[in-house]
Amino acid sequence: MRATVFHAPGDVRVERVPDPKILKPTDAVVRVTHACICGSDLWFYRGDSKWEAGWRTGHEWMGTVEDVGAEVRTLKKGDRVIAPFAYSDGTCEFCKKSVQTSCVEGGYWGGADDDGGQGEAVRAPLADGSLVKVPDAVKDDEAMLMRLLALTDVMGTGHHAALAAGVKKGATAAVVGDGAVGLCGVLAAKRLGAERIILFGRHATRIAIAKTFGATDVVSERGEEAIAKALEMTGGGPECVLECVGSESSMEMATSIARPGGAVGYVGVPMGSLKGLNLRRMFSENIALRGGVAPVRAYIPELLNDVIAGKLDPSPVFDMTVDLDGVPGGYAAMDDRTAIKVMVKP
Amino acid sequence: MRATVFHAPGDVRVERVPDPKILKPTDAVVRVTHACICGSDLWFYRGDSKWEAGWRTGHEWMGTVEDVGAEVRTLKKGDRVIAPFAYSDGTCEFCKKSVQTSCVEGGYWGGADDDGGQGEAVRAPLADGSLVKVPDAVKDDEAMLMRLLALTDVMGTGHHAALAAGVKKGATAAVVGDGAVGLCGVLAAKRLGAERIILFGRHATRIAIAKTFGATDVVSERGEEAIAKALEMTGGGPECVLECVGSESSMEMATSIARPGGAVGYVGVPMGSLKGLNLRRMFSENIALRGGVAPVRAYIPELLNDVIAGKLDPSPVFDMTVDLDGVPGGYAAMDDRTAIKVMVKP
Repeated sequence: MRATVFHAPGDVRVERVPDPKILKPTDAVVRVTHACICGSDLWFYRGDSKWEAGWRTGHEWMGTVEDVGAEVRTLKKGDRVIAPFAYSDGTCEFCKKSVQTSCVEGGYWGGADDDGGQGEAVRAPLADGSLVKVPDAVKDDEAMLMRLLALTDVMGTGHHAALAAGVKKGATAAVVGDGAVGLCGVLAAKRLGAERIILFGRHATRIAIAKTFGATDVVSERGEEAIAKALEMTGGGPECVLECVGSESSMEMATSIARPGGAVGYVGVPMGSLKGLNLRRMFSENIALRGGVAPVRAYIPELLNDVIAGKLDPSPVFDMTVDLDGVPGGYAAMDDRTAIKVMVKP
Repeated sequence: MRATVFHAPGDVRVERVPDPKILKPTDAVVRVTHACICGSDLWFYRGDSKWEAGWRTGHEWMGTVEDVGAEVRTLKKGDRVIAPFAYSDGTCEFCKKSVQTSCVEGGYWGGADDDGGQGEAVRAPLADGSLVKVPDAVKDDEAMLMRLLALTDVMGTGHHAALAAGVKKGATAAVVGDGAVGLCGVLAAKRLGAERIILFGRHATRIAIAKTFGATDVVSERGEEAIAKALEMTGGGPECVLECVGSESSMEMATSIARPGGAVGYVGVPMGSLKGLNLRRMFSENIALRGGVAPVRAYIPELLNDVIAGKLDPSPVFDMTVDLDGVPGGYAAMDDRTAIKVMVKP
């Protein structure tokens, strides 16, 4: 089959790789029908995280089951499935506590040892624990599938940020980051009942989406000015802050504006954000830091129900679609921010 | 009156200062009967925090009301009162949310503008919001008063760490720090129902107290060895970690041992602890960081009831008693760790 392979920063290629097959009785082989390029893929694409030539890429994908191992109980050939960006057994202590990203048997798609989603097919380990079946009634509804595709990562991650930030009915929330995760964070905060949602962003198209998702205010200033404005407009800071970037400046922003007694829910992969932590203020004002890599497997069933019921539509974050050969161009578009998020249809 | 005044690192002196008097109708003037020297007093004593010559010291104290302003409703002359280490109005948004340390009108005893507890008397602003009356039945019971004295800071702070770490019935908790706050953290974790309580400590007398407080295990190794041992003995880490020091190494320990999905409750004033934060692990394992300066005012009523009912006795943390003239010697004893915590009886 063909799949995307990392070669060097700025250099991903679509190449011939071995066809996936069942290796363990808990495996499934899935034909990929939809995948994405993730903001966090840019870390290796930009050389900011250590990746090795030959590693496979793509951790967000959906597809159709082609084969299952002898012990797979919940899936069969022909099922349409959503893959959370981490696979997990569904039975260990951490899976039972809804921290599937810490599963003792789990892992992430792509890299050195696993198939990635930016390819024609995937061998999916721990299929019963990981993959969620899309109800047959909507399995070929392309508009619905595009909405569900966001549940593989960004929508679940935005939801995790909102939960970690403590968003409840009537809350005031701020969202640091106008990427796909930040936009989904706005949508998640709205869904959880936030009354006021302040987006930190500067890009007109992203702001426009955020407003349709529920943002009530926008702060486009940077640094100290943005902090001062957020504190002023909320009379001391929003109690819930969703940190959706992971950089030093975004973490500094988040921890400097949260209201005393409030919380920062952080889901941006921390690339430098440690330095930005305003720990002195967090300590003196009892501001909690919660979150981390999102256990999106825990959230798919609930979010899927809302998507199917027509109550949730994160699909506007996809503003570019490519086929498999278009993946390198998709990376480039996300890297120079001409695309918010790229959908791949192999 | 006489009170303790900071002059320079290693140099605190007991001197004549102006007598306190009612300045605002919400003030009380209180004769100090009991006070403490706090581990956090050592930060300025060692020159690790910026203090200026002439500032007054002592934030943990109890006493007898001598005078009240015209608007004070809950206290009268002769009442025995417990002072939390921060004063607060009891009526603002943050006081109502039990984050009295963020009170919009509040402050801390001592320093440039307020009387400190290590003196003969104190002008207490916001008396109704801050001071808690000791029931008359026990107001002269010296053993009881020594137990209640710990509620001014260390017992409430240990309790805050335990709550922030998420300690519940049956939990496994680890306590990083064998100072008075760490020991009270053990006691608080036991009180909240922890089944297993692991103390990180190396001092025989402190370990002995921790065991009477409920510690079931002791780790005396340092650094990497201690981390490895804690992970091994709990099969992957305790879900609740109380960080009761505030140094780089203690924070590194705490964030490196917490179980995936668990929490670190931190109450040690962060002096270097930012560098120790294992943010990468916190992110990948969804370990929360909660806590901060303890709003002990919120906890005094509940803890006081338990002390009076004979269910809670933190007084073993006091292992040295001095009069006012003995305060400088008390600082020296805590500085060289020959005393765990010094009680002052002016």
